[in-house]
Amino acid sequence: MLKFELKKESTEDNKGAEQCRARLGSITTDHGVIDTPIFMPVGTVGSVKALSVEDLDHCKAKIILGNTYHLYLRPGMDVIEHMQGLHDFIRWKKPILTDSGGYQFFSLARLAKFSDEGVAFQSHIDGSRHVFSPEKAIDIQLTLGSDIMMSLDWCIGYPAGEKEVMEALNKTTRWANRGFDAWQEKGAVNNLFGIVQGGMFKSLRSLSADQLTEIDFPGFAIGGLSVGEPKALMYEMADHTLPLLPRHKPRYIMGVGTPEDLVELTRMGCDMFDCVMPTRNARNGQLFTSKGTLNIANAKYRLDKNPLDAECNCYTCTHYSRSYLRHLYKAREILSYRLNTIHNIYYYMDLMEKMRNAIAADRFFEFRQAFYVKRQNDPREGVSE
Amino acid sequence: MLKFELKKESTEDNKGAEQCRARLGSITTDHGVIDTPIFMPVGTVGSVKALSVEDLDHCKAKIILGNTYHLYLRPGMDVIEHMQGLHDFIRWKKPILTDSGGYQFFSLARLAKFSDEGVAFQSHIDGSRHVFSPEKAIDIQLTLGSDIMMSLDWCIGYPAGEKEVMEALNKTTRWANRGFDAWQEKGAVNNLFGIVQGGMFKSLRSLSADQLTEIDFPGFAIGGLSVGEPKALMYEMADHTLPLLPRHKPRYIMGVGTPEDLVELTRMGCDMFDCVMPTRNARNGQLFTSKGTLNIANAKYRLDKNPLDAECNCYTCTHYSRSYLRHLYKAREILSYRLNTIHNIYYYMDLMEKMRNAIAADRFFEFRQAFYVKRQNDPREGVSE
Repeated sequence: MLKFELKKESTEDNKGAEQCRARLGSITTDHGVIDTPIFMPVGTVGSVKALSVEDLDHCKAKIILGNTYHLYLRPGMDVIEHMQGLHDFIRWKKPILTDSGGYQFFSLARLAKFSDEGVAFQSHIDGSRHVFSPEKAIDIQLTLGSDIMMSLDWCIGYPAGEKEVMEALNKTTRWANRGFDAWQEKGAVNNLFGIVQGGMFKSLRSLSADQLTEIDFPGFAIGGLSVGEPKALMYEMADHTLPLLPRHKPRYIMGVGTPEDLVELTRMGCDMFDCVMPTRNARNGQLFTSKGTLNIANAKYRLDKNPLDAECNCYTCTHYSRSYLRHLYKAREILSYRLNTIHNIYYYMDLMEKMRNAIAADRFFEFRQAFYVKRQNDPREGVSE
Repeated sequence: MLKFELKKESTEDNKGAEQCRARLGSITTDHGVIDTPIFMPVGTVGSVKALSVEDLDHCKAKIILGNTYHLYLRPGMDVIEHMQGLHDFIRWKKPILTDSGGYQFFSLARLAKFSDEGVAFQSHIDGSRHVFSPEKAIDIQLTLGSDIMMSLDWCIGYPAGEKEVMEALNKTTRWANRGFDAWQEKGAVNNLFGIVQGGMFKSLRSLSADQLTEIDFPGFAIGGLSVGEPKALMYEMADHTLPLLPRHKPRYIMGVGTPEDLVELTRMGCDMFDCVMPTRNARNGQLFTSKGTLNIANAKYRLDKNPLDAECNCYTCTHYSRSYLRHLYKAREILSYRLNTIHNIYYYMDLMEKMRNAIAADRFFEFRQAFYVKRQNDPREGVSE
């Protein structure tokens, strides 16, 4: 059973212009302790793409995310059950968080049909038909053995009208109650988080938070962000919703974001993040550095003997030149995907560690200022280059 | 400058049926010592596909091969020159052998036109036009900084008539002389091997060996095998040609082969091998084990908790189940390519080590017998499963 210790709440202000609501905490699970705020690399289908578990250790990853929808379809739950859970199957000894499938029904599954009962859908792999319910999402995640399970939610896109958002919100609440009850009946092993929806309406975010926090989940997530809305609107919704969540429980914003997003949302008091951006962008040659985002395909790196980021201590930066990394990327060598991914994940984990240190030292705004000056861009302007 | 020490010549016979002509030796280069017989993993374009240099160390690789044709086209010689050679560029500290491009003109380049002068061809990547000559092949390999360079040869396919083979053979000899002279003029740094051609005609293999061995190359290779001919014919040509090469110089058969080929050709006295089979097959899910070849995609491995090969000490076999490896392969996860390749390269390197030990102990035929019984197949029957 999860224990969340709130170690510090920042009281910094930025010369009166902004409050820092960043928090320091620790989450204790059966598979170890996680210092928050934390970023969780995404291991969709039983592997953080291109990395081994030793690579993840090198990158200082402390918890990874698995996608229930993907794992349910492949390898399938009989395999996971036979192999005694996801940890043993993939050889990851530290905590795992699994989502509920809700986001994939929204984004990936074919012909998803939502009813009060659950979701009927066709596999994006082979078109086979399946049904998920809030109870089944719990069953599957118990089989996976996730340290943190997520309640089945109804995620909607942007833009969406108030009526549509309200319907999804209400269904999410009913499903959260059913999932919570199913979890309790199964002995309340591991942990289950509820997910707040409410689209881009503050009033509906408040309503959803009210409904969800009536349920005694060990932690809460904010879902339905980063679904196509403008960045400023995402920040506005997060800023509005985070304070509505219980102070002494972890707060997790799902599927977000850029390095700048992590900085801004940490300032607002978010404790947990996940996003495919560091892994996916790595495979597309987009590498995060202390000086901004670097496109390794760029011809200017052809003869460049420097590391990707002179300030980075990752395996890639301490061993390889930009010239070689560009060559591997252009030649589509498999090693390219691994080296790039190691760097990006390390960068994200390192950024979180630096933020934790800055919060501890009451120097969060000083850190943020230096971060933006170095990255030579602004969160509202998008990435450089 | 290369030093080849011939440490032992086997005198075993297989109850009178076969002679063992296997040799033990060591090749000393500027980048270290290689015990022979040795297998050289292929790092075509600056990376043994899917592996880092640390992975290669784990696999006990002592020398790798780079393809001159590929590296010349990408990243290009200005990059290699700027990065001070291939070793520094790819961070591999041990010996490198580079081929001359001859095989790629035969197999890969577009519209290759052979003349006495050299080969005019178009890049398989972008169609750009280039010309290679024996002298240029030396220049490029000197820039690469290969410990062992190969003379430009004219490789032909199977079947080929005697006249065609003779023409290629004669051109190969003239080019070998020109390449050798160019190498001498450049100070005879590093090492240059000559390549025996002669198609599937024993008389022409003899003629080519006679012509080539008149040149004082530090080592000799047999080219133009494994170009589509039946296995028995390949063995016949190798068996005929290997004894024609100087006893106190390394003998290298290019582009061969299966584990069974390595065993048979080692018995015939070959010292060096390279082949894309362990790396390419790994990426296609074909894994070499002590009990034969295993297709990891097979449904029977779905719930299999065993390692690929219980006798193998590689990272993959000591850490992962067949069930997980099958899943990674079916899901086309990048980690699959790396784990499979680590195993196959380790298997090849381990096989060579076991053969060296068997030769040292005068137990080569005993080793071979056990090898075939376990692999449950015969070199003339192809791989199992």
